Amino acid sequence: MHDPDPLALLSATARTAKSSVIRDLLEHAKRPGVISMAGGIPDPDLFPVEEIARAAGRVLAADRGVLQYGLTSGEVGARMAVAPLLGHEPDPERVLVTTGSQQGLDLVAKVLVDAGDVVVAGDPSYLGALQAFRSHHADLEAIPVDEAGMVVDVLEERLEAGLRPSFVYVVANFQNPTGAVLSAPRRAHLVRLAERFGFLIVEDDPYGQLRYDGVAVAPIGEGSDHVVRMRSTSKVLAPGLRVGWTEGPRWLVDAMVIAKQSADLHTSTLSQAIVTELLGDADWFADHVAAIRHQYGIRRDALCEALTTTLGDRISFQRPEGGMFLWATLPGVETMPLLATALENGVAFVPADAFTIDAHRPHTARLSFATVDPEDFTTAVERLAAAIDAC
Amino acid sequence: MHDPDPLALLSATARTAKSSVIRDLLEHAKRPGVISMAGGIPDPDLFPVEEIARAAGRVLAADRGVLQYGLTSGEVGARMAVAPLLGHEPDPERVLVTTGSQQGLDLVAKVLVDAGDVVVAGDPSYLGALQAFRSHHADLEAIPVDEAGMVVDVLEERLEAGLRPSFVYVVANFQNPTGAVLSAPRRAHLVRLAERFGFLIVEDDPYGQLRYDGVAVAPIGEGSDHVVRMRSTSKVLAPGLRVGWTEGPRWLVDAMVIAKQSADLHTSTLSQAIVTELLGDADWFADHVAAIRHQYGIRRDALCEALTTTLGDRISFQRPEGGMFLWATLPGVETMPLLATALENGVAFVPADAFTIDAHRPHTARLSFATVDPEDFTTAVERLAAAIDAC
Repeated sequence: MHDPDPLALLSATARTAKSSVIRDLLEHAKRPGVISMAGGIPDPDLFPVEEIARAAGRVLAADRGVLQYGLTSGEVGARMAVAPLLGHEPDPERVLVTTGSQQGLDLVAKVLVDAGDVVVAGDPSYLGALQAFRSHHADLEAIPVDEAGMVVDVLEERLEAGLRPSFVYVVANFQNPTGAVLSAPRRAHLVRLAERFGFLIVEDDPYGQLRYDGVAVAPIGEGSDHVVRMRSTSKVLAPGLRVGWTEGPRWLVDAMVIAKQSADLHTSTLSQAIVTELLGDADWFADHVAAIRHQYGIRRDALCEALTTTLGDRISFQRPEGGMFLWATLPGVETMPLLATALENGVAFVPADAFTIDAHRPHTARLSFATVDPEDFTTAVERLAAAIDAC
Repeated sequence: MHDPDPLALLSATARTAKSSVIRDLLEHAKRPGVISMAGGIPDPDLFPVEEIARAAGRVLAADRGVLQYGLTSGEVGARMAVAPLLGHEPDPERVLVTTGSQQGLDLVAKVLVDAGDVVVAGDPSYLGALQAFRSHHADLEAIPVDEAGMVVDVLEERLEAGLRPSFVYVVANFQNPTGAVLSAPRRAHLVRLAERFGFLIVEDDPYGQLRYDGVAVAPIGEGSDHVVRMRSTSKVLAPGLRVGWTEGPRWLVDAMVIAKQSADLHTSTLSQAIVTELLGDADWFADHVAAIRHQYGIRRDALCEALTTTLGDRISFQRPEGGMFLWATLPGVETMPLLATALENGVAFVPADAFTIDAHRPHTARLSFATVDPEDFTTAVERLAAAIDAC
């Protein structure tokens, strides 16, 4: 008898897949006493726990069917419930409920990508999306991101030089990790390119509801069949429910439904029913979003003020108008070695290179303000300053 | 401007994937007045709805963290909660919580199968498993199933002739669709072959708790590193929670955790907490399983009696000792055309060929007794008999 040989048995994908840098980092950031600006998670104190508990009680009392096997595409009511996150009433045949919007990213890659197909993503981008695309053997093409989001002119040059992507992945509102908003002219430009070159735009929008000031930019390509929209309850209700949506052309949604059937049959019907109740109460949901927006806005302000007060011109950053992240550059300071010292000093962040594809941004870091107590930002930034001094 | 071209954009997998026959059939079986023996679903009247509602209330009141992002491998308590379904206390490092055991089937294929690798499955088999394996480009090798489960002698012949599978998929207890139990000698034989030829056994056991008479057969290869076990709450609590488990060698579970991270980050933490509460109350869980076993046993008996009384020697079947399915042969009657007539007469079942890989079993059908009222079996079988007469 011999033990199984993992190297012989694992698939090529599984042999090359790596655990994410974020996940490994979070282990250190969880130590007691560390003020963590490393996480990409919402504040549990802002979850509407009582309302979720009441909704769970109501839906379970009303219909035991809420615990039965369900439609792979999601219950019709749950599909329609995404309306306030889309800003329009969707056609339910164009909507799929997913197990978090992460599953939407996985399924869209599964149905669109053959090995070696190109997927375009901003550089930097949300790591979980890049992992999902790579797990389906996509070749990632990196397009720089600046203060106004993806630099669409660079994409146009590459398309004219022959680039033919399956899709372009974009987080247009308060992008993770940069906090940037894709400008209105770039949104329009991107749609024109999609129509001219025949690719899809996968628009992921977990943070769109969390705008603290400034004016909302109109959604990318409203009414265009070239846009696939992903929405999520993770930042506006609670991530543990694992409910997201994909809205897109029917041929794509149909293919994703078939792929989802073998992936997990359907998303928790209990979670779907809870989310349907809460998003269906339009007044309550609007008030709830206003309340969490207020709380996160206070934290954004407190972080910006502490950075300016304590670090002055030793740091440069764009004040994010929403979301959870601030993208800061520390001229002359390498953020990867800085992190180890910062953790010793009791503060955590994520170095920019954790999120980059081709670019190397040694002096930049992502600071998340979502889970820090407003009173702790001064201490957090003082610890960061001390770590900079010690580096 | 032109519309996106699905044929040009869809991946090879997505272009060839087909919706399942079961799903299309269930549409007809849902018509009012039809007694459906077609479904593979448990009876919602047997879901412990009040206990699930109370558990939801308790876990939400105790810890808001139950709604936060969680570990990709599952909360430690939720991993340990599988103990009563495994029959032993697991090492949590060898366990992964999945979004239903369907996700376990998808992930195990994702991490073990390169395009063209062989996966062995019984013929017939659970369709959802075959779909998951095919979606990862596995070549399926079909091994016949008889009254004592997979015919392991045939597998041995093929292995000796050079077959080298990534893994062998087996539902050893009350297999869907045949209801067969893999015999003890065949279980031992299969493990010897796995050790000799270096493959894994993926043992999926959604029905193991539902034994109505006879003696339980010892689990396949206890303690063997060649066995990967999948368990599920879908048939003992409720499928809508979407909680399953995979237990296996650590190298495999680690690879599946990485694959799951990009698939859906983690399974609903609320569902995990509910399941942990209910399975953790050992006395309650044992009583609950005994109660649903009793109810399903009554239905198994009622179906067998109605078939014998009404159809006599026009039908042959093995009385299943558990599970939800009875596999019946109607000599001289083709079950695919019979289905259309049966639906007109107000009764539904699934023709055997919906579940086969290579075999053609034109005269056989799967009858599910799980969701039929015991008083309705006589009528159901009379309608079936009338359809046979009319064919």
